[in-house]
Amino acid sequence: MDNETEKLSILKFTERGSSNVEDIVVKELPLTIILNNKELVTLLCSPANLRYLAVGFLFSESLLKNKDDIKKIIVDDRRGVVRVGTEGDEELADATLFKRFITSGCGRGASFYSAADALGQGKVESKIEISTLEVIALVNNFQHRSQVYRLTGGVHSAALCDNKDILVFSEDIGRHNALDKIFGECIMNDIGTDDHIILTSGRVSSEILLKVVKRNVPIIVSKSAPTNLGVRLADDLGVTLVGFVRGKRMNVYTHDWRIATNGR
Amino acid sequence: MDNETEKLSILKFTERGSSNVEDIVVKELPLTIILNNKELVTLLCSPANLRYLAVGFLFSESLLKNKDDIKKIIVDDRRGVVRVGTEGDEELADATLFKRFITSGCGRGASFYSAADALGQGKVESKIEISTLEVIALVNNFQHRSQVYRLTGGVHSAALCDNKDILVFSEDIGRHNALDKIFGECIMNDIGTDDHIILTSGRVSSEILLKVVKRNVPIIVSKSAPTNLGVRLADDLGVTLVGFVRGKRMNVYTHDWRIATNGR
Repeated sequence: MDNETEKLSILKFTERGSSNVEDIVVKELPLTIILNNKELVTLLCSPANLRYLAVGFLFSESLLKNKDDIKKIIVDDRRGVVRVGTEGDEELADATLFKRFITSGCGRGASFYSAADALGQGKVESKIEISTLEVIALVNNFQHRSQVYRLTGGVHSAALCDNKDILVFSEDIGRHNALDKIFGECIMNDIGTDDHIILTSGRVSSEILLKVVKRNVPIIVSKSAPTNLGVRLADDLGVTLVGFVRGKRMNVYTHDWRIATNGR
Repeated sequence: MDNETEKLSILKFTERGSSNVEDIVVKELPLTIILNNKELVTLLCSPANLRYLAVGFLFSESLLKNKDDIKKIIVDDRRGVVRVGTEGDEELADATLFKRFITSGCGRGASFYSAADALGQGKVESKIEISTLEVIALVNNFQHRSQVYRLTGGVHSAALCDNKDILVFSEDIGRHNALDKIFGECIMNDIGTDDHIILTSGRVSSEILLKVVKRNVPIIVSKSAPTNLGVRLADDLGVTLVGFVRGKRMNVYTHDWRIATNGR
């Protein structure tokens, strides 16, 4: 936790006047990912689980497909560099192609937003269901897990769950990174994502949805709003998209047959 | 407004059960920016003010330096393409250099995060001051301007202000885009940014701070949290960074001499 936050002296104004106080802010680390000696990208991220972030990012961008292809991962925390070496160097897309997959604004990966087949894979076919009570319990649990957020208000969180429990949890200043860290951890530790649920604190845009589909996750639950492209992709690709989970309320945007009204 | 949102049929769960209702979600558009026939980047953005977004982005990335260098801007809303043609083609950084300036996670631009001189410009020297009452009034006004947010909960907003009024306002699904749209509009319409104030709904990370410094804006005010790198850059580059403005409370992280406790 100490590694992810920093104490600062600030001037705080309240109804009762101003005072110099100590405040805690979230750390931001520029992390450069180098794949087979080729510098790919610099992510701005929270300085935890950098190995998982690198692996999750490479899988999300289709630059890695099998865990067994990874020969080595060297993390240099101090310099903010992760070097990944793989089998089958030749599979790496060249820089020009890769560039198309990086966007900015608030995210990346805009070249394959419309067509399912651009993902090179089919729809999510899972028959899993979840009840609204289970969704509510998971989101409640999720909110209480977020330690860095409680301290700083400056991070997003994400989690992989089954119907009852949070299995993997992460926090990051970027909502994309938080999700890549989850998937990187699942890949490295052989934790299955089929038939599972992703929770996120952030908005569900096309990029978030595509990451989830790539790991074959059938249900994504957000406390926040989706975009129309997020909804369209969820509909096309067989994902149940639940948004605005607040108290006992929620909106189900797509594939609502996976949401059971009563207990199971 | 219609152009920026979409109506969908969803299944809504509340304490009283479920019902099919109409819901409004924010639109997300992949926008490709082409500079002098070279495809630069695809941003995921809200489909308004695309011309301003393209110009603001190019200035933020130092790919354009003078408005007069712009020979033409052609916006193709339907295809999501903006073509910008400039004088002095040769000034365009090549793709490899440019790639370093794009990051993902939740943003871009991580290569110049530490040193002021990497920006090729000095500190912000403005002597402007603002009172806490003025900050509170501006933020209050700012929150009431956000129409798309009120409808969808899915966008960030940004504004350029003087001490009393909001001069330019924008909303976008990405907090970086919202800011680039503000600056693009200022550049195209010859609206000065020196001695002004930027308001943002989003977190203040290094990238946001660097955009603000690039336009020589001395004060940034956010309803949300900063990162440690955002604070460090603000400190180094002479920017007053105010965060967590809520009701009558606020945190001043850097250069608090610009914040006056009483009215002016």
